[in-house]
Parts: sequence; structure tokens; C-alpha cells
Amino acid sequence: MGKHRSTSRDFHFNWRFLRSCYHLGRLVYPTWEWAALLTFVTIATAVGREVVNYFSGLNLGKFYGALVGGDESAFWRVFVSSTLWYVALCGLIAFVQFLAWCLYLSFRSNAVRKLQHLYFQNGVFYKMNCIDDQGVDNPDQRITQDVEKACSILATKIIPVVFLCPFTIGWYTYRTWAIAGWFGVVSIYVYFIVGTIINRFLISPLAKWSARVEKAEGDFRYKHVSVRDHSEETAFYKAAGFEEAETSRLFWSLFRQQRSQILVRLPVDFFQTFFNFFGGSLSYAVQVFPIFIFRFYDDVSSDDLPTIISNNSFVLIYLINSFTNLTDLATNIGEFAGYIQRITEMKEVALSYSSNLHRDLSPSDLLAVKVYEKGGKINEGANFSRGGSIVELSGVSYAPPTEDNDLVSELSISVSPSHRLLITGPSGVGKTSLLRCMAELWPIRTGRLTLGEFPRGVIFLPQRPYFPVGQLSLKQQVVFPVHEDEVPIEEHDRIVLILASVGLGGLMVTAGDLTGKVDFEWQDQLSPGEQQRLSLARVLFHKPSLVVLDEATASLSEFAEKEVYALLSAEKIGYLSTGHRSSLFQYHDKVLQIEEKGRVSTYPTDEIRY
Amino acid sequence: MGKHRSTSRDFHFNWRFLRSCYHLGRLVYPTWEWAALLTFVTIATAVGREVVNYFSGLNLGKFYGALVGGDESAFWRVFVSSTLWYVALCGLIAFVQFLAWCLYLSFRSNAVRKLQHLYFQNGVFYKMNCIDDQGVDNPDQRITQDVEKACSILATKIIPVVFLCPFTIGWYTYRTWAIAGWFGVVSIYVYFIVGTIINRFLISPLAKWSARVEKAEGDFRYKHVSVRDHSEETAFYKAAGFEEAETSRLFWSLFRQQRSQILVRLPVDFFQTFFNFFGGSLSYAVQVFPIFIFRFYDDVSSDDLPTIISNNSFVLIYLINSFTNLTDLATNIGEFAGYIQRITEMKEVALSYSSNLHRDLSPSDLLAVKVYEKGGKINEGANFSRGGSIVELSGVSYAPPTEDNDLVSELSISVSPSHRLLITGPSGVGKTSLLRCMAELWPIRTGRLTLGEFPRGVIFLPQRPYFPVGQLSLKQQVVFPVHEDEVPIEEHDRIVLILASVGLGGLMVTAGDLTGKVDFEWQDQLSPGEQQRLSLARVLFHKPSLVVLDEATASLSEFAEKEVYALLSAEKIGYLSTGHRSSLFQYHDKVLQIEEKGRVSTYPTDEIRY
Repeated sequence: MGKHRSTSRDFHFNWRFLRSCYHLGRLVYPTWEWAALLTFVTIATAVGREVVNYFSGLNLGKFYGALVGGDESAFWRVFVSSTLWYVALCGLIAFVQFLAWCLYLSFRSNAVRKLQHLYFQNGVFYKMNCIDDQGVDNPDQRITQDVEKACSILATKIIPVVFLCPFTIGWYTYRTWAIAGWFGVVSIYVYFIVGTIINRFLISPLAKWSARVEKAEGDFRYKHVSVRDHSEETAFYKAAGFEEAETSRLFWSLFRQQRSQILVRLPVDFFQTFFNFFGGSLSYAVQVFPIFIFRFYDDVSSDDLPTIISNNSFVLIYLINSFTNLTDLATNIGEFAGYIQRITEMKEVALSYSSNLHRDLSPSDLLAVKVYEKGGKINEGANFSRGGSIVELSGVSYAPPTEDNDLVSELSISVSPSHRLLITGPSGVGKTSLLRCMAELWPIRTGRLTLGEFPRGVIFLPQRPYFPVGQLSLKQQVVFPVHEDEVPIEEHDRIVLILASVGLGGLMVTAGDLTGKVDFEWQDQLSPGEQQRLSLARVLFHKPSLVVLDEATASLSEFAEKEVYALLSAEKIGYLSTGHRSSLFQYHDKVLQIEEKGRVSTYPTDEIRY
Repeated sequence: MGKHRSTSRDFHFNWRFLRSCYHLGRLVYPTWEWAALLTFVTIATAVGREVVNYFSGLNLGKFYGALVGGDESAFWRVFVSSTLWYVALCGLIAFVQFLAWCLYLSFRSNAVRKLQHLYFQNGVFYKMNCIDDQGVDNPDQRITQDVEKACSILATKIIPVVFLCPFTIGWYTYRTWAIAGWFGVVSIYVYFIVGTIINRFLISPLAKWSARVEKAEGDFRYKHVSVRDHSEETAFYKAAGFEEAETSRLFWSLFRQQRSQILVRLPVDFFQTFFNFFGGSLSYAVQVFPIFIFRFYDDVSSDDLPTIISNNSFVLIYLINSFTNLTDLATNIGEFAGYIQRITEMKEVALSYSSNLHRDLSPSDLLAVKVYEKGGKINEGANFSRGGSIVELSGVSYAPPTEDNDLVSELSISVSPSHRLLITGPSGVGKTSLLRCMAELWPIRTGRLTLGEFPRGVIFLPQRPYFPVGQLSLKQQVVFPVHEDEVPIEEHDRIVLILASVGLGGLMVTAGDLTGKVDFEWQDQLSPGEQQRLSLARVLFHKPSLVVLDEATASLSEFAEKEVYALLSAEKIGYLSTGHRSSLFQYHDKVLQIEEKGRVSTYPTDEIRY
């Protein structure tokens, strides 16, 4: 097992970007509901904002006229009316921004919900994190951060601008035509087209670098989370100096990527600023047509001319502005492309895992806890079937999904319900891997693996005890993987008794009470032995037909181990174990010994040859 | 042990903010070097930008005058000169932005380096993550993300504006006074002061909500990282449904915080937009003074008046703009306050841990590997001293630092160099805690703990094997916690031999070669048994005087365990173990048995009473 992490991959602003946009669209608009409604309302309000903006913009020319003409009462009328227009305009601007943030939230919740669903469906999270061969780095970061950033850019920067452009560009093009004729319109359009082409070339490398920076940020964060989770081990090893050097190394790598990104941004920033500023000059230059060439205003009084010129400038600058809003988007779209291609890559790999499912892995609730009321379907995979034995293997070969050589070949064994099997052998020979095949996490290569019928289900205790984070209650940790709300209050006494029986009565004191949230994480709080006891409490609570114990008593004393097996027998819970200790033999009838190079032997425990 | 995580704490814009600013200043300007120089250059360039801006701003009025006056050749002269001014201005604008990003990088690297240094010094990371009672949540997030955001706001939003304000406000105040007299200046100042007071009340809740959102984002991310790190366990438990529900629950909690934040932002956005827009009207209204009241321009020709009015507007609007730039900062400063108080809190707690050090914990390289060449000082703590025994305890009591009741009281035992001690007892009674006291991670409450002299140092193998992430080479994992570059190439053969001797020769194939980076993480790649073997390879490589084995062979077969102890004896490495297995007794001379309620007994292994 082992997750192979990809080397950095570069993104460009190209047709893949458009495909990613389509996929993102499917994520943020899963159905025609809130997000779609909000998008519509946001765009409609933004249109209203533009209309109000047009009328309030015309006030500037009136101010001008009143000041130049020396008409004080006209001036104060304009002042009052423009103030009222501004109140309306600012209300609309703030409201559009508010709607855009609502849209962002709605996008983000749709996308997170959908991605999480894909991630947790059909074991995608397992394949992505443990046996991934498609190089999806940091799926956690994609769900939590890349989605956040993509939705924020989309909702607050892209949508309020992109969807409005046709309207504003159409209207101000018409007005420009009325003022300065076709020459005016054509000069502004040419200006925009040249600007866009230049931008296109400047942005491509920016998208590439922002993806690299993201990757480096992800590695840096992952290292720090790892340090936080292994503080005790680091402290025991006195490895603080080493960890400081390593975190610094990752930070410097990030630093270098960011430095390059900043250098690439410089020409983009210059060009975009100049494009905006020069638009101001252009708004006057275009008035050369009506004033000096067509001589529209030769018969206008010199008192009215300032107002006309000011209003013309407003219209022309607004057309240019509508275009520059589009090119300003360029920086945002560059970043956006990086984020959504990371999201899309994850979505596509998740979907490909799900659709490959029936070829390599068959989902089944076979090894799941029988959840209260919730009965489950039973899917039969290609090589899996159900029979009278607990487990029957005939000619089974298996290996890690990403490797070529079999760990074990041609393994045949049958375990009847009266047999309790112990799988033993040196570490690394494939004991846990065999359990992975039984749990249908790994496909088997050849042969046939038949599992028995288990009316009360099967629980699998992994070698490393697991307690989900989130400051969950003691009850939740015992009834996991069932949600605590599904376990009725009548069961509480039984939970307390079970905790006492595994020697964890004291945890009630640590936790305060059974059902309340705690202010620590259980994984940090418990010693490895206590963790194994608490895992066993789960088994005693759920009372499955079979429990598969993967070195589940390795951190317990031999006396405690004896108690555990006695409790399992008393509760009529069948078991199948892996382990090394010779003390384990007495609780089992049959031994499957796996040796180096995949050699296997089976024998009853009464003829132990250690 | 166990980290207690704090409940959310609210931040306000108040005197604590100023104190935090001071602390951040110390972080980002550790000495007078790059960051300080860059700050100076950034501000100087920004001043240049303002000067160029002033002159290019005056061009607008000339455009106006040329159009109204109908002077075409004057118009084209203005067009060319304004284009040149704009090229200069945009170059400066882009360059200021570039410098601001350089400044950001320099700030971030200073702050990260300093914080990481504090974090890894004097065991602060251990206290913060494992025994923290001061509620510093997510230290990893503070170093990686909060610093990033604070530096980005400071360098690109705050510094280019705040330091420039005195200059621009001074100059444009003088110009306003020249145009509109004291009445003009006073009206603009009153406008700004009223605006600031209103803003002050609107921003306070914003800072509070942004801190809450940050906390919720942190919890959501932490959960996803935890899921990623426990994918295999989750898959075995078939707990995907549970994890989906939990990640969704944390996301909804984040969603609700963000929703409130958005609602709080609405009035702030409205007010700030209105403040900006109304400034436009005000720039004309103030011209009431020179035109209608003082009648400065009564003898100016109607051809020149438009240019004068336009230039006056530019000056007035620029004074208002300088002020609104300050109030626009408000939103940024609100966020900024949240970030820097989180950073400052971490820094203060880290410093308080370091300064409390001599009262409760004595740093020492006693249990560290003897690093190549790097000899270390030996600090004697209050209750620790060095003697002829390996370890001697007299009347020692100990307990977790955050709890009141002793785990074990009045423990006395002496282990001479010829004795090999096995510490045994049920899980949770305090075996590992005793080792924590010996490693000086926890203080002892009473009594005296004397450790021997170990010329070749001591290595402590923690119960949970630890392999730092970062796709490090196999060599690095063997020589950890020493950095691989410090180990000369002549040692490579010995490393290969050691790997073979612990049965891990096959890892050379997995890794490709000894010194190259791998494309997986070792913690994911190795089974628990292989992890313990690789940890033991470290011991054989460093050949310390003593190795402390905390259940370090629990995942190995009894045969492999025998080999391990034989290797240790052959290499003359003394050992002290904890463990449960009866097979361990044969490798030890003396047993320290800890029972429930802190009862202890010691006896030689030849009279085992199990």
C-alpha cells in the first residue's frame, strides 16, 4: 500500500479550462434551485445598478454646467438630486455585493456537498489516499480550500461582471454610435481586441505559476499538520531541530514559487493598469469625431457645451470600462483556471474510480456493522460469493493494486464456523493485505474468495485504532461507525457496563458524561492500550457475528488479552485474528502461517511448531 | 495527556489590536534588513507614483479646455503628453504593486522563520499540541495560513496606503486651501471624521465574525486532513457514511458563521460605497466657495473656466480620496486584526512556555542522539541529576501536567548499568508517562530522578513509530533525527547492512535507491511491523549507550523480537523496555510492575509471578 503523490503539473488557459468550467457548473448548480435563483437575482440587481449608474453619471455634467454657467440655484438642485441618486446607487452596489456573497455560499455548499459525496461514495477516498495511481495530491485541500477560492472568484468577481457585459456593452455601444458615429465605436472595439490579445499571452504563465504555488502551499501545510499530529514522537526523538529544518525547507520551496509568480505578475499588472488609464484619454480622443470632424456642436452655446462634453465622456468611458472590466477579470480567471482544474481533476478521477468499480471492487455491506433498522443490499462481486464457511479461499493470489508481483499465490484454505483462525507470520508478508482482500478493499488476482453469511454483520478492527476527530462524545466513539443519534437512550446503561468490562470505567470521569462533547481529541487522550480497549468496546456494543482482529490486542497485557477473548466468547461473537504472540494460540483452533516470499502453511494450534 | 482545544474567542478592534501590531512588527522586522529596505523603497516609489499622478491628473482639465475651446492642435498636444504621463504612471503603479508583493514575501518569510523557531524551541510545539492548557487551537494553521493572510493584507493593502497618507493629505490640503479657503478644508475634514466614527462602529463586529469564520475553516480542514490520514481505518470500518455526515456537520457550522459574516458586511459595504460616491458630489459642492461666495473667477474668460473647474475638482476629489483610502482600509484592518491576534496569541504563549521552562522543565540533550560533531551542553534541572546508575528514582510522584491526582506516588527504584529493566503493567497505568518524566517532557511532582552518564547518548523509541513526511529518502528515515547531509557517504554500506539485518533489505527496491526522494510517504507505505523494524534500524545506526523501547516490538513476531534483542546486545547497546508479552522477560533482569491505582512492585525476572 502507499499513496504515490504526483509531481507538479502545469495548467494553461486553454480548451481544458472550458471543460473544467462545464464540470464546475455541474458542481455548483446541481439542480435548478437556490444557486440558480440567486444567480438570476444577482444579475437582475446588477442590471438595476447599471441603470441607476447611468442616470447618476449624467449628474456630473449638470454640476459642471451649473458651475461654469454661474447658476447657484441650479447647482443646489443638482446637488440634492445627485445625492438621492447616489443613495440608491450605493444601496444597489452593496446589495449586489451581498447577493454575490450569498451566491458564493450557495455555490460552495453545493460543490462541497457534491464533492464530499463523490469522495465518500464507493470507497473513492480510500483509493485516492491509499492506492491512488492517478496522482490526485491533497484531496482534502481541494475540497476545503480550492473550492472556497474558486467559488469566491466565480460568485464575487466573474458572475457580476460577465453576465452584465452584453447589456452594458450593447447600451453604451448604441450611445457611443449616437455621439461619435461608427468611427468612435470601431476605435473603442479595436482598442479592446488588441488589449485582449496581449492579455491572453500574459496570463497563460500566470495560471501555471498559481497552480504551482497552490501545490507548494499544500505541501507546507501538510507538513505542519503532520508535525502537530506527531508532536509526542518528535519530542521523544528530540527531533525539533530536524522538524524546523524540514518545515523551513518546504517553506523555502514555496517562497521560490511565489517569487516567480510575483515576477510573472509584473507585466500583467502594468499592462492592465495602462489599459485602464489610457481608456480615460481615449474617451476624450473619440470626441474628436463629433467636435472637430462632424462639427455636430458648432451651433451649441458655449454654456451648454461643457455639459455635453462631460456627458459624452461619461458614456464613452463607460463603454471602455465595460471592456476593461472584462480584461481585469483576466487575473482572476488565471487563478480561477488553476483552482477549477484541480477540482475537476479530482471529480473526474473520483467518477472514474466509481465507474471502474464493478471491474475490480464489489461494494458490499458484508463487513459493515448492521446499522439500526438500515438493512443493506448485498452485491456479489465477480470473485466473491457467499457460502457455509466463515471464509473459503481457493487458489487465491493477491498483491497491492499498484504492484505487479503477487504477495501470496495460490492460497487455499477453508474456515468453518466452528474454527477460530489465527493468521501469523513476520511483518510485511501480507497478513493485513489478506484482510484487505476479505474486506473487498483490494481485488484478488486469481482464484475464488467465498465469505459466509453473517446475520449480525462483521466488524473489522484495523491495526491502528481510529477515533474520528471533532471532540465527539464518549458514546459516539463507542457506537462508531453508527451515529450516536441512532442509538436510543435505553442503550446507555449497556454502554457504561461495556466500558467497565474492558477496564475503561474511568473514561466516564475523563469525558464528564457519556453524551456530551469533550474538549480534547480521543486519539490524543488515550494511550495505545486504552485505544485498543475502546475499539473492543465497539465490538462488544455492536455484537457482530464475526469480528476480524488485526493485531487488536498487541498493546494489551496477556492477562487483558485473555479477558478480551473471554468476553468475545461469552457474547458469542466469532473471531478471526492476526498476531505474533505465542499467547494467542490458546484462543484459536487453526493457524495460517504466511512466511517470506509468500510461502504459506496451515495447521491446528494443538501442533504448534514455533 | 491530551490537548484541550479552546472554545471560540471573539476579537475586537481595540487596544489589544495595537499591542498585536507591535508584536507583528517584531515578527516581520526581526532586524533592519531586507524587509525594512523594501518597505522604504515601496513607500518612496509610492510617493513618486503620487507625484506623477498629480501631474497627469491635471491633463484631464486641459483635454476639457481644448474640446470646449475648439482648439484641435492643442487637443493633440495634450493627448500625446497625457499618454506619456500615463505610461510613467502605470509603470510606477505596477512597480509599487510588485514591490508590495516582494515586501509580502519578505514579511512572510521573516514571520514564518521566527514563529517556527519559537515553535520548535524548548519543546513549545510539544506543550502546545500535547499538554496545552492555554487554548492555542491549530498552531499549524496560524503558521501556514494566518501569517500568510496577515502579511498579504499588511504589505499590499495597508503599507502602501497608510504611510503615504500624511504626504498626500498634506499636499492636497494645501491645494484645497488655495482653491476654496478654510471653509473648503474644514468641510472635507468634518466629512472624513464623521465617516470614520460611523465606520468604527460598523467594523467591530466584522473582526469578531472573521475570527469565528477562521476557526470554523480550521476545524473543517483539520477534519479533512484527519480523514485523509485515516483512510484505511475508515475503509475497514466502512465508516464512509459517518465521515460524510461529520464533514458535512463541520461544513454547515462553517456555513452558518459565514452567513452571519456576510450579513454583518452589508451595512459596512453600503456605508463605504456611499462615502466614496458622495465624495464626488462634495468635490463640486466645495467649489461653491470660490465661485459663488468668494467670486474668485468672475474675471476669468468662459473658455478658461472649464479647465480651472476640472483641475479644482481633481484636487478636491484627491483629498477626499486620500481619506477614503484610509476608511476603505477599514475592512482590511478588521480582517487583519483577527489574523494578527491569532498570531500574537501563539507567540505570547510560546514565549511564556519558554520562560517558564526552568521552573518546570529542564532542556537537555541527554536523551538526544549524539549528533555528528555537534556536542551539546548539559543543563541540570531542579530535580534531575546524573549518577552512576542508568536511572535512579527516589520517592518520585508523577501525573499529567494538567491533572491533579498522581498517577504513581513515591516510586523508588535504582537500575545499575548491568541491569536491564522491563516496565510492565496494564495499559493506561502510567508506563509511558514514566518514560515522559525520564525524557524530561513532563515534570516530576516530588522526589528525585537521577539519570546516568551516557557517552554515546540515549535514543527513545516512541510507542507509535514516526516517519517524517515530505517524501524523504530511505537514508533520511534511517539516520533521523540527524539530517542526511550530515551523514557521510562512507556510512552508506553500513546503512544497507543494518537494513538487511532487521529484515528490511527489500526497502531498497521499494525506494529505488538509498538517497533519492521517493514518491510516497513512508508512514503510509510500511506495515506497523515494518515501521518498528525501521525504527530499530535507527537505533542500530546511531549505536547509543542506551535505547528506551516503548513497546517497540509489539508488532513483531516473537522470533523477530529475539533477533532484535540479540542485535542490541551484539552492538553493546543498553536497553530499557516497556511491554506486556511474557516473551520479553527472558531479555531482561529486573521487572518494574505498575498496577491500577499506582501500586508498584519490582522483582528480578527469574522469579516471574504472572
